[in-house]
Amino acid sequence: MASFREERDTFGPINVPSDKLWGAQTQRSLQNFDIGGERERMPEPIIRAFGVLKKCAAKVNMEYGLDQSIGKAIMQAAQEVAEGKLNDHFPLVVWQTGSGTQSNMNANEVISNRAAEIMGHKRGEKSVHPNDHVNKSQSSNDTFPTVMHIAAAMEINSRLIPELKNLHSALHSKVKYGIDRASGTLPRMYQLAQGGTAVGTGLNTKKGFDVKIAATVAEETKLPFVTAENKFEALAAHDAFVETSGALNTIAASLMKIANDIRFLGSGPRCGLGELILPENEPGSSIMPGKVNPTQCEALTMVCAQVMGNHVAITVGGSNGHFELNVFKPLMASALLHSIRLVSDASASFVKNCVKGIQANKDRISKLLHESLMLVTSLNPKIGYNNAAAVAKKAHKEGSSLKEAALNLGMLTEEEFESLVVPEKMIAPSD
Amino acid sequence: MASFREERDTFGPINVPSDKLWGAQTQRSLQNFDIGGERERMPEPIIRAFGVLKKCAAKVNMEYGLDQSIGKAIMQAAQEVAEGKLNDHFPLVVWQTGSGTQSNMNANEVISNRAAEIMGHKRGEKSVHPNDHVNKSQSSNDTFPTVMHIAAAMEINSRLIPELKNLHSALHSKVKYGIDRASGTLPRMYQLAQGGTAVGTGLNTKKGFDVKIAATVAEETKLPFVTAENKFEALAAHDAFVETSGALNTIAASLMKIANDIRFLGSGPRCGLGELILPENEPGSSIMPGKVNPTQCEALTMVCAQVMGNHVAITVGGSNGHFELNVFKPLMASALLHSIRLVSDASASFVKNCVKGIQANKDRISKLLHESLMLVTSLNPKIGYNNAAAVAKKAHKEGSSLKEAALNLGMLTEEEFESLVVPEKMIAPSD
Amino acid sequence: MASFREERDTFGPINVPSDKLWGAQTQRSLQNFDIGGERERMPEPIIRAFGVLKKCAAKVNMEYGLDQSIGKAIMQAAQEVAEGKLNDHFPLVVWQTGSGTQSNMNANEVISNRAAEIMGHKRGEKSVHPNDHVNKSQSSNDTFPTVMHIAAAMEINSRLIPELKNLHSALHSKVKYGIDRASGTLPRMYQLAQGGTAVGTGLNTKKGFDVKIAATVAEETKLPFVTAENKFEALAAHDAFVETSGALNTIAASLMKIANDIRFLGSGPRCGLGELILPENEPGSSIMPGKVNPTQCEALTMVCAQVMGNHVAITVGGSNGHFELNVFKPLMASALLHSIRLVSDASASFVKNCVKGIQANKDRISKLLHESLMLVTSLNPKIGYNNAAAVAKKAHKEGSSLKEAALNLGMLTEEEFESLVVPEKMIAPSD
Amino acid sequence: MASFREERDTFGPINVPSDKLWGAQTQRSLQNFDIGGERERMPEPIIRAFGVLKKCAAKVNMEYGLDQSIGKAIMQAAQEVAEGKLNDHFPLVVWQTGSGTQSNMNANEVISNRAAEIMGHKRGEKSVHPNDHVNKSQSSNDTFPTVMHIAAAMEINSRLIPELKNLHSALHSKVKYGIDRASGTLPRMYQLAQGGTAVGTGLNTKKGFDVKIAATVAEETKLPFVTAENKFEALAAHDAFVETSGALNTIAASLMKIANDIRFLGSGPRCGLGELILPENEPGSSIMPGKVNPTQCEALTMVCAQVMGNHVAITVGGSNGHFELNVFKPLMASALLHSIRLVSDASASFVKNCVKGIQANKDRISKLLHESLMLVTSLNPKIGYNNAAAVAKKAHKEGSSLKEAALNLGMLTEEEFESLVVPEKMIAPSD
Repeated sequence: MASFREERDTFGPINVPSDKLWGAQTQRSLQNFDIGGERERMPEPIIRAFGVLKKCAAKVNMEYGLDQSIGKAIMQAAQEVAEGKLNDHFPLVVWQTGSGTQSNMNANEVISNRAAEIMGHKRGEKSVHPNDHVNKSQSSNDTFPTVMHIAAAMEINSRLIPELKNLHSALHSKVKYGIDRASGTLPRMYQLAQGGTAVGTGLNTKKGFDVKIAATVAEETKLPFVTAENKFEALAAHDAFVETSGALNTIAASLMKIANDIRFLGSGPRCGLGELILPENEPGSSIMPGKVNPTQCEALTMVCAQVMGNHVAITVGGSNGHFELNVFKPLMASALLHSIRLVSDASASFVKNCVKGIQANKDRISKLLHESLMLVTSLNPKIGYNNAAAVAKKAHKEGSSLKEAALNLGMLTEEEFESLVVPEKMIAPSD
Repeated sequence: MASFREERDTFGPINVPSDKLWGAQTQRSLQNFDIGGERERMPEPIIRAFGVLKKCAAKVNMEYGLDQSIGKAIMQAAQEVAEGKLNDHFPLVVWQTGSGTQSNMNANEVISNRAAEIMGHKRGEKSVHPNDHVNKSQSSNDTFPTVMHIAAAMEINSRLIPELKNLHSALHSKVKYGIDRASGTLPRMYQLAQGGTAVGTGLNTKKGFDVKIAATVAEETKLPFVTAENKFEALAAHDAFVETSGALNTIAASLMKIANDIRFLGSGPRCGLGELILPENEPGSSIMPGKVNPTQCEALTMVCAQVMGNHVAITVGGSNGHFELNVFKPLMASALLHSIRLVSDASASFVKNCVKGIQANKDRISKLLHESLMLVTSLNPKIGYNNAAAVAKKAHKEGSSLKEAALNLGMLTEEEFESLVVPEKMIAPSD
Repeated sequence: MASFREERDTFGPINVPSDKLWGAQTQRSLQNFDIGGERERMPEPIIRAFGVLKKCAAKVNMEYGLDQSIGKAIMQAAQEVAEGKLNDHFPLVVWQTGSGTQSNMNANEVISNRAAEIMGHKRGEKSVHPNDHVNKSQSSNDTFPTVMHIAAAMEINSRLIPELKNLHSALHSKVKYGIDRASGTLPRMYQLAQGGTAVGTGLNTKKGFDVKIAATVAEETKLPFVTAENKFEALAAHDAFVETSGALNTIAASLMKIANDIRFLGSGPRCGLGELILPENEPGSSIMPGKVNPTQCEALTMVCAQVMGNHVAITVGGSNGHFELNVFKPLMASALLHSIRLVSDASASFVKNCVKGIQANKDRISKLLHESLMLVTSLNPKIGYNNAAAVAKKAHKEGSSLKEAALNLGMLTEEEFESLVVPEKMIAPSD
Repeated sequence: MASFREERDTFGPINVPSDKLWGAQTQRSLQNFDIGGERERMPEPIIRAFGVLKKCAAKVNMEYGLDQSIGKAIMQAAQEVAEGKLNDHFPLVVWQTGSGTQSNMNANEVISNRAAEIMGHKRGEKSVHPNDHVNKSQSSNDTFPTVMHIAAAMEINSRLIPELKNLHSALHSKVKYGIDRASGTLPRMYQLAQGGTAVGTGLNTKKGFDVKIAATVAEETKLPFVTAENKFEALAAHDAFVETSGALNTIAASLMKIANDIRFLGSGPRCGLGELILPENEPGSSIMPGKVNPTQCEALTMVCAQVMGNHVAITVGGSNGHFELNVFKPLMASALLHSIRLVSDASASFVKNCVKGIQANKDRISKLLHESLMLVTSLNPKIGYNNAAAVAKKAHKEGSSLKEAALNLGMLTEEEFESLVVPEKMIAPSD
């Protein structure tokens, strides 16, 4: 039999499962937002970032007078959240209030109950208060944007950029600007809203709180976070998320092209272009025996399509903020973190399971190269565009070689042809 | 200690956890596509639809000579998949091969091992073969599009349309065309690719298999599925998914407007428009005591933004199919089912927790109505547009009532004004 | 020297070029919305639809008491607008007021001045009044949505559907559902807002005006327009435009796939897939003589990309309507008409300059067909998937034919192989 | 009667209007791509950039041996193109070959004929050859990407950034990061593909040509163009365009929020929020006399929607490049230049016709401020969140002031209340 305890908030009492640390407001959200099921829970990086933030806030609040024993218990509980140990106590879905208040309260409630336990008290007794202690000097208005930034910056630094670098080095080129683009958005991502409290005013905080909390988060995460210049803007708009998603969208467009090219160039073995040989990782078909498919390319291009879609979702969310508070925050956080994770993981998979094993089909490339009618281009400077066109057209029509066509038309001698049409010389400007 | 058994496919042996029913190809995919974690698993409606399909296929295959005892065991195992009992044995993520082959093989492997057990054999022995028995007369090329359609049609019928009807009736209007739009896409969703096998040819099936399997699925699901007219098209393109996503996109645009209007009209209590009073479901702020937010509107508008994003993802996927097989199938399936689920759940939540409790703030509406300068419009037919404009401008400038302005300008008598400016008469054409 | 005359509105006098028929409000908009230049003018189908509507409105207004000589002059002037004769007098850009009021006033002003001239009066004298006569019983709130629908329905019927039918017949398949999709949106496009006047109330119209005006427009255009069931909805939202754009988006996804396939299959002549021979319409390169490119495919796929983009613009516009009036109307009208025109014209060009001239490269197709390792699939029913896979893998590894590999492995006799592997039999189910 | 002259290319002779400077290939494109009409012509900044490039190319080619008199005539003719004097001779639409070859040839043909005339020869005689002279050392493969970059960089520098700065200064805030974002993309936009010729090889150019041409263009435009590091990438992908469009998309999301906020805050005069008074620029309604609308906000938000749509078009185009050459170039160029122009012009219009005239409605703001229940937040530190909530709820329920409610509940003295609830102190952290 499931057992329950009573929790309370300003709306009154409500039953909560006994084995869970959350409180009344989390329970209400669970019941009021039955949307999408467990898959739609707030992404883990957001939960962990709440742990980081609440730990730092307690530390700074102790400097401003928060009871030391309560502060230390909050720090310990928050650390457990930061480490992912209390993930099961964060059941709320993305599709909740657009300010993220309910997830902020989820964090406040879990940490307050856990801190109470650490101090030897019981859950639900509010000996550590979710609002007055854990959320002290804070508002959902500033904590949620702050954890959005912390989570995104950490994921970009720990996942996205390393995997893009990995991909860049595996491909001996390209993707370099992608890394620049992802890195280039970080300065604005490192700006934290914390300290803005209600709609950016800083109400109920102390002077200097904003700078100290950013410094504490920076120390905790080893990332160069700073306090946002303009707190009102930091709450009302999330342009940094639209921008970062735009960088991911650019990377997705780039990766889609790369993966498609590899897929097409690897098509075969006998009836496609066949210039590349892709590694065989698994049977490719449930009916066609021996078939091997460019499955890593397919997974990556699907990821790119989703990233482009998430970008539109984020853009729509970002453009629909009104007045002092954009209320599409959980959507924007979720979609951006989704895109970061998918690009990172798919890049890693693509490098490991595809790029590293690609071989050039040199025989076929050589055959195609020497058959190509476009070698005629190197005759332009000698015989002019119109005459060169006549050579190519004749060769195409008669199925002959370019040399045969050129000699038959009397346009050059064999020696001239041989000295001009040298594929190896056609890949660079001449001296 | 975790224990393993050996499974084999055409690539050789591989270890699989002993307590899992999947086989070698599933295991390879798990290892080769470590993308996104558990949240990214193939959506449950797809897994269940595989159960439906494989059960029906076994039934039809028995008519075409499949061993009866094997066929019955497959049917029983597949039924368990259809009921969601074996969900834990479907670990593959969306971001796999774009044909969905790996999920088809996952279904084949789980069902073959489970059927073997039902017959008293052991897992991994291939006494029931995943390809030759469970996948008989089938190809991933046709099964995956088929389960995409089954899953989408079932979700639309069992979730989306009922919830939209619910919303329509709660709103006493609107959304009606949304229901028409969702329903209008179903005829093309009811067309099943099954029987197309390799790239639509029907290779390795028997004549009539396609019609029988569609009829069997229709019977099983109580939905009017038929075999697709053109199997090549059914595999190569997924226009029905782009179209259905387009219907959801239209519904999302419509719902975003509705939810925004309710949000704005409910803004207040004292400093906003305040024409509606929204139900109070939970504390709205972690810092502002007593604050109540239009949280259901916010959740719904976030869902709409995600649906618009998913629509772009589906469009990109749908437009990038090449040749005989579109290889963005898992993405398209996942994104569409995501959208269906989110719109359905969010609509239900919105109706239950918001729309049903909305009250008109009649005092405020009445006050605003009678103060409005736009009542002047009803003077046009009497005094002309230019004179009416002069009345409105004078009233605005002087902060007076329209009547005062009109009388001061000597444009009508008090009686004339009173008989013309009657808000109750301004909401319809005159006789 | 440019000469001017004075025109007046409720804001006072303003100079207008003497040779133009527009009045004061048009002139103000020209000066206040200097955005994008002449390319951004309101699309011609909207201007012509205004001509149709204002003619019909005058006709119906005469039944309700409008002076007959004024009414007839308005009808004649409006007919000139409908025929495109006065296009030069419609200088306003799309990026104006979101209700389209300025373009409605442009139509009212041009028609009133032209009607005055027809009656022997001078421009600017207001002997025919733009608001009281030409706009009688109307509001921009209902006229602009009405011309949006008239213009879209006419373009769909006169351009889009004929060109899609043309394409459908040229391709001997596909695109059929695209025609269904475009046609399927028309019932909602045929619903006209006219008669709703201010925010859908019907204020300042007479009962029955709405039905009569729709019937008159239907007669004038030979299209089955009806009055909208719910005028409030018809002004506040434009779901029919989002829906129709969704149909175009689906068609674009479909056409992008078709055009890409033709492009890839026509790649060559010597180093690509080369299964199709595309018509040569023009030199393909400014540097590579004799090169021929799949230029019609390229133009069509670019059009598809723009249509997908316009769809997002329309979705964003459609979702951002607030309260009684969506104010993204000119954008939505312009983007949808843009998409319709581009798909129609590009389809026509594609059919005429590409599809009709495509030839199959039968020699190459035959060669590729018989080399394909996937013919092995037809061995499955005889020797099982695993053995068939072994045959294919051996052939691939050794560069041998499937038959050689199968015989070497001792899996079948030559006769068995010959009777099973018959490409002609592999394109359909067996008896 | 229209008169024609005969022009020739490698496909043979074709008639061209005598009064036009274009040649055979332009004429073929005109006939083969009848898509969208004159509105769809290649944007003027592209045409002008061709003038800049061809002038610079002739100058550098003269250093490498091009006949001096021909070179000078080309430079003079190209200068006329750069100045927009020959716009009428560039009739081709965006929807042509995806490499932009036809527009490159249009430039080559117009300049060669004009240069011939300058030298005293006749049009069509090829005394100055479009390929061998004007296009010398160039390919459409590198010229079109080059003019894309020149055109975009010039438009960003001459229109977008100045107008955003103008807006930034008018708004006393925001938009600053938008300027950074637009500027931040320029380093990649300044990289020119010229010198890559056929697919990036540099075939038929001389060593050093690429660096010299970039330097010459930089000198001509006064912008810091350089030669692209990787010419293959510069032709095959257009990530810089996707990225720049992403910056515009972010700016659009930001501007949509700003314009919407101004619109809502200016709603009224009597029944809306009414905190701002917007300038009255024109009559707002054709039926409601005296009505004034936030028309500049509406135009700007429509522009933002189109920019978001164009961004998707550009993303789709950018992601669909295959192999050595992305063939969505004209689309990408057109859509990006469209977005730049619209944002620039709409920002200018918004500043001039709206922002500069906005007034705060101080009486109303003050009234709303002092009525707000959210002032209760400042009681939290004194009486705790739960007690403060009780005060707000009591005041809301009874329609009383916060002070009355607080005193009635006995939570503080009047002096305490007065010292704590001071709106002026609530907009910043406390000491």
